[in-house]
Amino acid sequence: MTDRTPAAPAVTLLGLGAMGTALADALLSGGHDVTVWNRTAARAEPLAARGARTAGLEEAITASPLVIACLLDHASVHETLDPVAASLTGRTLVNLTNGTPEQGRELAAWAEKHGIAFLDGGIMATPPMIGHPGASILYSGAREAFDTHQATLERFGVADFLGTDPGLAALVDLALLSGMYGLFGGALQALALTGSEGISATEFTTTRLLPWLNAMLTSLPEIARQTEEGAPGDAANSNLAMQAAAYVNILDASEAQGIRPDLMVPMGELLHRAVAAGQGGKDAAAMVTLLAKEA
Amino acid sequence: MTDRTPAAPAVTLLGLGAMGTALADALLSGGHDVTVWNRTAARAEPLAARGARTAGLEEAITASPLVIACLLDHASVHETLDPVAASLTGRTLVNLTNGTPEQGRELAAWAEKHGIAFLDGGIMATPPMIGHPGASILYSGAREAFDTHQATLERFGVADFLGTDPGLAALVDLALLSGMYGLFGGALQALALTGSEGISATEFTTTRLLPWLNAMLTSLPEIARQTEEGAPGDAANSNLAMQAAAYVNILDASEAQGIRPDLMVPMGELLHRAVAAGQGGKDAAAMVTLLAKEA
Ligand SMILES: NC(=O)c1ccc[n+]([C@@H]2O[C@H](COP(=O)([O-])OP(=O)(O)OC[C@H]3O[C@@H](n4cnc5c(N)ncnc54)[C@H](OP(=O)(O)O)[C@@H]3O)[C@@H](O)[C@H]2O)c1
Ligand SMILES: NC(=O)c1ccc[n+]([C@@H]2O[C@H](COP(=O)([O-])OP(=O)(O)OC[C@H]3O[C@@H](n4cnc5c(N)ncnc54)[C@H](OP(=O)(O)O)[C@@H]3O)[C@@H](O)[C@H]2O)c1
Repeated sequence: MTDRTPAAPAVTLLGLGAMGTALADALLSGGHDVTVWNRTAARAEPLAARGARTAGLEEAITASPLVIACLLDHASVHETLDPVAASLTGRTLVNLTNGTPEQGRELAAWAEKHGIAFLDGGIMATPPMIGHPGASILYSGAREAFDTHQATLERFGVADFLGTDPGLAALVDLALLSGMYGLFGGALQALALTGSEGISATEFTTTRLLPWLNAMLTSLPEIARQTEEGAPGDAANSNLAMQAAAYVNILDASEAQGIRPDLMVPMGELLHRAVAAGQGGKDAAAMVTLLAKEA
Repeated sequence: MTDRTPAAPAVTLLGLGAMGTALADALLSGGHDVTVWNRTAARAEPLAARGARTAGLEEAITASPLVIACLLDHASVHETLDPVAASLTGRTLVNLTNGTPEQGRELAAWAEKHGIAFLDGGIMATPPMIGHPGASILYSGAREAFDTHQATLERFGVADFLGTDPGLAALVDLALLSGMYGLFGGALQALALTGSEGISATEFTTTRLLPWLNAMLTSLPEIARQTEEGAPGDAANSNLAMQAAAYVNILDASEAQGIRPDLMVPMGELLHRAVAAGQGGKDAAAMVTLLAKEA
C-alpha cells in the first residue's frame, strides 16, 4: 500500500445517545478503528461489545485525527470540550450536535483559536437511516477538512458540503426541521381530530392522510417558484381570502371536538394578515414575504 | 333505453368560484345537462360559452333533481338558500362548501325540515385536480341520496361515503386540511429561513425540502400505530427531550435571521409540555394525547 491515508482511518465519537450510537455503528460497519466516549460511561458498553474501543475523554480525543461530537446541544459541546481543547489542537472536529448558525460560527471561532480544523454539520436523518439510502448530512466550515475526511463522513449517508460559512449547515438543517415540524404538527392535529370521533388512526393515516399529504407536497415547487420570482400572481385556484374563511373552521371544529387548536392558530393569523394586507386574491407564496419581521 | 335514470342526469351548480367552475366543467365533460348560477352573474359567462345553461337562482334550482352548492362559507349557503328553500323541496342538495361538523349537521336539519335530501361534502382536491386521478370528495348524510347520485358525483373524483352522520365529512376534511396547513406552514418557514440567506427557493425545494419531507412522511404510520395503541413506548430513536432541546434552535435562528417564529412557536410549547409531563423519553405519538383539552 502506497496510500498515506488508510481506507478506513481511525475516528473518535463523543456522545452515544441514539444518534451517536448509530454513527459509531456505521463507522464500525465501514471497518474503521472507532474510539467512543460518553458522559454516562455505561452507554458505551453495547458498542464496545460490537468492537469499539472505549476510553476517557482526553484519551479518546487523542486516539484519532478525526473527532466527531454528537451531544445534546451547544452548551453540552462547550461543557465537554472546553476543558480538553488543547488535546484537540491539530485534529479535525466535526460537530453533529444540532445548533443555530450563530452557534456554528461561534464554535468555528473557538476551534480556530485552538488550532482545530472545524466542520459544523446537520444530520438530515433519524438514527435508523444512518448508513442507509435517504440519509444526508449537511456540512459547512473548513473545506480542506471536508475533503480530507469526506470518504469517512460518507459512511453516514450523502455528505453535502454547503460552503465555508460555518453557519450554513445549521441554517439549512433548521429550515428542513421547520418543514418537518410543520408536517408533524399538522399530522398530530389530524390524528387528535379524527381520534375524537373514534376513527382509527392507522386506517386514517394510511388511506387518507398520507395520500393527501403526498398530493399536497406537489404544490410546493409552485410556491417556491412564485417565492423566488418575488411577485406572487393572482391565485388561479386557491385564493387566500377563501383559505382564511375556511381556516376558521379548523379552529372552531377543534374547539368543538375538545382538541386544543394551539398548533393551528398562527397559520390562521398569517392568513388573516395576508388578507388584511390586500393579498386575499393571491396564492400561498404571498405569505412567505409576510414572515419577514419588517413585513 | 329502459333505464329510468339517464346516464348523465341534469345537475345544477350554485357558486362559480375557482372550485365551482372546476366542478361544472367536470360535469360538462361528462355530458351532463348543467345549469349554473353565481351571485355575480358575469362569472358564469365562460361556462355558458362551454355549454352550461345560466339561470336565475330559483330557475336554476328547479332545472335539476340534484343541486350542488359550492359557495364561500356556511353563512353564504344560508344567505343564498334560505329564501329559496321551498324550491329545493323534493330535490337533493349536496353542499360542497367548506364547513364544520356542526354546520353540516345544522344544514342537514334545515334540509330535513324543508323535505330536501341532503349530503354534506368535503373536497379533497384543488380545482385543477377535479375530474382527474388523485381527487377525492368525502360525503356524509343521506345514504340513499348518495347511492342515487354516486355516478354523477364520481365525475369529480373518488366519491367516498363516510356515514350517515352529516358531520363526518367535514370532520375528516378539516383533519386533512390541518395536515395540509401544518405542511404548508413548515414549508413557508423553511422558505423564509433559506431566503434570508439568499438560497434559491426552487433549488432548495426540489433538491432538499421535498426529498426530506417525503422521507419524514414515512414516520407517520408509526406515530399512528402508537396513537391507536394508546400507550406510546420509550423512544428508540428521537426522544422528545432531545427534540425540545433542538427545537429552541428553530426559534432562535428565525429571530436571528429576521424571520417571525410565530408559525413554529406552538409546537415548541407542546414539546416542552410533553417533557414537563414526564414524556421526555417518549416518541412523537405521546403528543397526540396532549392535544386533548382535558390533558
Ligand atoms: N435522534 C434523531 O432523530 C436526531 C436526528 C438529527 C439530529 N439529531 C441531533 O443529534 C444530537 C444527539 O441526539 P440523540 O438523539 O442522540 O439524543 P439522545 O439520545 O437524547 O442523547 C443525548 C446525548 O447527549 C449527551 N449529553 C447531554 N448533555 C450532556 C452534557 N452536558 N455533557 C456531555 N454529554 C451530554 C448524552 O450523554 P448521557 O448519556 O451521559 O446523558 C447523550 O450521549 C442532538 O443534537 C440532536 O438534535 C438527532
Ligand atoms: N379552491 C380550492 O382549492 C378548494 C379546495 C377544497 C375546497 N374548497 C372550498 O370550495 C368553496 C369555494 O371555494 P373557491 O375556491 O371556489 O372560492 P372562490 O374562488 O373565492 O369563490 C367563492 C364563491 O363563493 C361565492 N360567494 C361568496 N359569498 C357569497 C354569498 N354571500 N352569497 C352567495 N355567493 C357567495 C362567490 O360568488 P361571487 O362570484 O359573487 O363573489 C364565489 O362563487 C369554499 O368553501 C372552499 O373552502 C376550495
